[in-house]
Amino acid sequence: MVPVLPYGFNGRWLRVDLSSKSLKIIDVPEELYKEYLGGRGIASYILFKELKPGIDPLGPENKLVFATSVITGTPIPGVNRIVVAAKSPLTGTYGESEAGGFFAPELKYSGFDVVVVEGASEKPVYLWIRDGRAEIRDATHLWGLTTKETVEEIKKELREPFARIGCIGPAGEKLVRFANIMFEHRYAAGRGGMGAVMGSKKLKAIAVKTSGRSVRFYDEKKLVEIVKWFNDNWKNQPGAVSRSQYGTAELVTPLNKDGTLPTLNFRGGSFNDAVKVSGEVLNKTILVSKSGCFACPIRCKPDVKGEKPYETDPSYGGPEYETITSFGPLCGISDLNVIARANQICNAYGVDTISAGVAVAFAMELFERGIITSQETGGLELRFGSTEGMLRLLEMIVKREGFGNVLAEGVKRAAEFIGRGAEKYAMHVKSREIPMHEPRGKVGVGLQYALSPIGADHVQAPHDPSFERITQHLTALGLTRPVNRLALNHEKVRAVYYGMLWWGLEDCLGICKFVFTPHSAGVLTPNHLVEIVNAATGWGVSLWSLMKASERAFNLARAFNVCEGFAGKDDTLPQRFFEGLEFGARKGQRIDKAEFDKAVKLFYEIAGWDEEGKPTPGKLYELGLDYVVEELYKG
Amino acid sequence: MVPVLPYGFNGRWLRVDLSSKSLKIIDVPEELYKEYLGGRGIASYILFKELKPGIDPLGPENKLVFATSVITGTPIPGVNRIVVAAKSPLTGTYGESEAGGFFAPELKYSGFDVVVVEGASEKPVYLWIRDGRAEIRDATHLWGLTTKETVEEIKKELREPFARIGCIGPAGEKLVRFANIMFEHRYAAGRGGMGAVMGSKKLKAIAVKTSGRSVRFYDEKKLVEIVKWFNDNWKNQPGAVSRSQYGTAELVTPLNKDGTLPTLNFRGGSFNDAVKVSGEVLNKTILVSKSGCFACPIRCKPDVKGEKPYETDPSYGGPEYETITSFGPLCGISDLNVIARANQICNAYGVDTISAGVAVAFAMELFERGIITSQETGGLELRFGSTEGMLRLLEMIVKREGFGNVLAEGVKRAAEFIGRGAEKYAMHVKSREIPMHEPRGKVGVGLQYALSPIGADHVQAPHDPSFERITQHLTALGLTRPVNRLALNHEKVRAVYYGMLWWGLEDCLGICKFVFTPHSAGVLTPNHLVEIVNAATGWGVSLWSLMKASERAFNLARAFNVCEGFAGKDDTLPQRFFEGLEFGARKGQRIDKAEFDKAVKLFYEIAGWDEEGKPTPGKLYELGLDYVVEELYKG
Repeated sequence: MVPVLPYGFNGRWLRVDLSSKSLKIIDVPEELYKEYLGGRGIASYILFKELKPGIDPLGPENKLVFATSVITGTPIPGVNRIVVAAKSPLTGTYGESEAGGFFAPELKYSGFDVVVVEGASEKPVYLWIRDGRAEIRDATHLWGLTTKETVEEIKKELREPFARIGCIGPAGEKLVRFANIMFEHRYAAGRGGMGAVMGSKKLKAIAVKTSGRSVRFYDEKKLVEIVKWFNDNWKNQPGAVSRSQYGTAELVTPLNKDGTLPTLNFRGGSFNDAVKVSGEVLNKTILVSKSGCFACPIRCKPDVKGEKPYETDPSYGGPEYETITSFGPLCGISDLNVIARANQICNAYGVDTISAGVAVAFAMELFERGIITSQETGGLELRFGSTEGMLRLLEMIVKREGFGNVLAEGVKRAAEFIGRGAEKYAMHVKSREIPMHEPRGKVGVGLQYALSPIGADHVQAPHDPSFERITQHLTALGLTRPVNRLALNHEKVRAVYYGMLWWGLEDCLGICKFVFTPHSAGVLTPNHLVEIVNAATGWGVSLWSLMKASERAFNLARAFNVCEGFAGKDDTLPQRFFEGLEFGARKGQRIDKAEFDKAVKLFYEIAGWDEEGKPTPGKLYELGLDYVVEELYKG
Repeated sequence: MVPVLPYGFNGRWLRVDLSSKSLKIIDVPEELYKEYLGGRGIASYILFKELKPGIDPLGPENKLVFATSVITGTPIPGVNRIVVAAKSPLTGTYGESEAGGFFAPELKYSGFDVVVVEGASEKPVYLWIRDGRAEIRDATHLWGLTTKETVEEIKKELREPFARIGCIGPAGEKLVRFANIMFEHRYAAGRGGMGAVMGSKKLKAIAVKTSGRSVRFYDEKKLVEIVKWFNDNWKNQPGAVSRSQYGTAELVTPLNKDGTLPTLNFRGGSFNDAVKVSGEVLNKTILVSKSGCFACPIRCKPDVKGEKPYETDPSYGGPEYETITSFGPLCGISDLNVIARANQICNAYGVDTISAGVAVAFAMELFERGIITSQETGGLELRFGSTEGMLRLLEMIVKREGFGNVLAEGVKRAAEFIGRGAEKYAMHVKSREIPMHEPRGKVGVGLQYALSPIGADHVQAPHDPSFERITQHLTALGLTRPVNRLALNHEKVRAVYYGMLWWGLEDCLGICKFVFTPHSAGVLTPNHLVEIVNAATGWGVSLWSLMKASERAFNLARAFNVCEGFAGKDDTLPQRFFEGLEFGARKGQRIDKAEFDKAVKLFYEIAGWDEEGKPTPGKLYELGLDYVVEELYKG
């Protein structure tokens, strides 16, 4: 079925059953790659087909998928992300998270497009993949180690200083529901608890090394041409230059001015001390160098070194915008050293910085409102702005100690446990904590939170300001009319829908959201992506066929959630967003609930879903998802 | 609103009111071109917005639109078709027909992207457009002339031997419901009675001449590169070479072998004497030279000279496949001289050869079955195979004489007039006569007949054999699975839907169906089209945005029909196709009615239409058709 020497992919998957300790290499037909591309496409295909609805995400029935795509490993900047997916222990939905760095190209070069891990080991193990061969190795001696220790230990024992390693820290071992998977202890597949799934399988790490490149591309000259074009042109794009200079931390200042910097658990949108946690100040204070990902010249990632008493190790990487805001303004904290320290704790123990920050801010608000007291917190005074409270609580979370054990379940479950109206302050959609983008000032972001297949997420579609001015790049996406960031009309719904297909396509292909327009830092255009896929595969795809592949993956993930019992009522936002911002430049601004509900219904109709958000047979058949129709409409 | 010097279009429309004899030049904003592109897109926009439902298509309230597109006038082969649209007097639906040749580039170069003719003149007139100026001129002296006479007369009186002229013949004047518009008396906007609309307005002709080129393109170098690529490559494509050598007549032999050559009013699918009317024989007998359209090297159009007693004038062009089959096998006739003569009568008097041929075959079957007798036919013996009967009846139709006056209304109305079960033999969908493609051997063609917005039409989507093998070009269209020509499953429905968007896009852009893959004669690919539009406009479109523009036009046309009262029950086929072919290689083959109805319903769901085939608000809003929602869902 697979051509002897396919272009763009190996045609081989590694299937690992940790219960039986068996390894299988399977050949996969080209048609599957054509329809699903990789990443989210392949992962949602595997999970929909293979997971029985209702399984425990932390049980051996769950499967953990590491997926590259047909363009992973090309030298194009930004095309380097590993997509990790499983049923999420945080949300109970289809779960997915992506990480940059170097792991994905290394995995693909080593001979496998995809690794599927199923079952569970009794004792800790890790997986070692080299040049198309794989081995399950004991990891008893690694259990309990931080991510950095794990990475160093494995490299030493394999005598492979350049192995690429994805691993969990102690938080993943302890099944913190928002535990992440760290690659080289600084690139995080952060969200949705993929690290807890790994922990539940007693899989401490996956190490990969290749001595060559197993995969070939159809038109390598063309790929090099595009890279050259990128290198010649990215500095003409002010957004890319600024991203290179300040990283994502550049967002703090403008969002604060705009009144959409999440502050004090989303009570307000501006923070008095925002300047202290800004990218400009970060660059002048704790920044020591910049890092980047495979083949990318932008290098947007900060390496930081904090000062006493909050020393930090630059090798863990520094806090990015989401982390700065969730441990900073969201908790009322303005000390970059403290934030960098929190970032390091998260990366060392392996938890998502967004969920962790939101969990701390949630606890602070409950404490200030008297819903919880120091009795529950083990004596901690959890007031907004308390740096010590924040760091201590974070440690308790990652170690599942005391009240931290409650928050390690995520704010939704914590609120249920606490009761007393705590749910009102639990900022989540489908149990997934809200990222650091205030939907009251860019309402399309609210729509993507509600309609994301993985719970609240800020990288499902370009944010509203991208749609305010019609550019060439929006033209390619079929968007011809500017739409105001506050509008919640059908133009906005369409923009968010098309935007979700576009960014979803990037997740099918394992692409960094920053490199492609209409992201403000974007350099390459949607039509470049068509060229890239064709240069990699020789298939002759178009943006139409690629968007349809993305729609296929989007509907698979949605169908997965429908089978898990999710329905229209779950596609909403925390009540707080329907009430006015309490302070900041957009004080009083709110989302109208009735308008929002109407927009969600319109989204369903545009998506080809019924009134409950269930994909219709017509949409599923259109996408070639016959097996989903059978499952969703059986009996 | 329009850039001072836009790329790809003039930004100017000419609006002609023949009732008041007023001419208006209006500026049109770039956004409109971006969303509607031209051709079908612009025409359906104008007609939906401006025509009141229920108007008489032959009354002054109807409007006749001549539309070019944003790529018309580029030097790309095949990009030269003029789209003519109005409410169809044959079907009562949105009506549209396209013609190749030289008129469209000339019109666009002269300064107008679109001409809209409304109202009606009392006396015959013609329109004269030169270098951005227009004039209504008396045509009393032209009334009653054939198309060739009209063209020659106008050129003489304007002293413009190179003017490009579209005109009607006597049939259009007499409001034959399938009267066409002839360009240079050999390129026909044939179907749906656009010539009758022109006749009802007493508009005998439109003449155009330019002395320069009013429009510029964004990247002329790129356009020339594509032309060069085309010229270097088209001879490597066997389908294109064969099309160049034999024209569409090449289809007679293979379709006859295949059992899908419509014969004896669609009773069977093979014709004993097919070889006598084949492209091979045509080339050896009556062919004298080949002609082509603007900028196209393929030159697929035959010039023929018949022998006594059926002499023909080569300047009228020769019969193409549809004409050969409708006057040949469909009527049981195997004499190419006779067929060429019928072709000339149609072109000189200005009627559609398909509808005319089907009308004659219909009458022949009625006669043979005794449903009509020589009393009604004025003594004519209308047996299948009667060359004299066919030619005489055709003359009676184009002149509306005797029984010809009945058939000049089209087979549907004729059958109603005749009664006595005649409807069973009236081969039409929505009153539009079936073209020469037998859906029982390629069932997707049946779907496009039923779901075409203009009634039965064979150029709404690629035919089934195109979908039997997955090529690069189908990959670009998002079709990844081969589907058998006889299958009526969801793969087929999807293929036809995507195929209708693709060929509909070609009608938005005024492109010949032959030059682009997956047509068997195709040379350019869908991705080439993206390059062409971008080279013309500089917009940065993608195949996604172009397909969405086509979907916009498709839904506009559908919405037009919904407003006219068309619904699900009208999306069907003549009963004959649900019964077995009576003879030929596919004897006994039929379409299953229940399966077909199910496929139509699935098509609706894929299209985003409700159970009655009415576009949902979600689909309309997605496409930015707010004004259509208002109209369709008012009150």
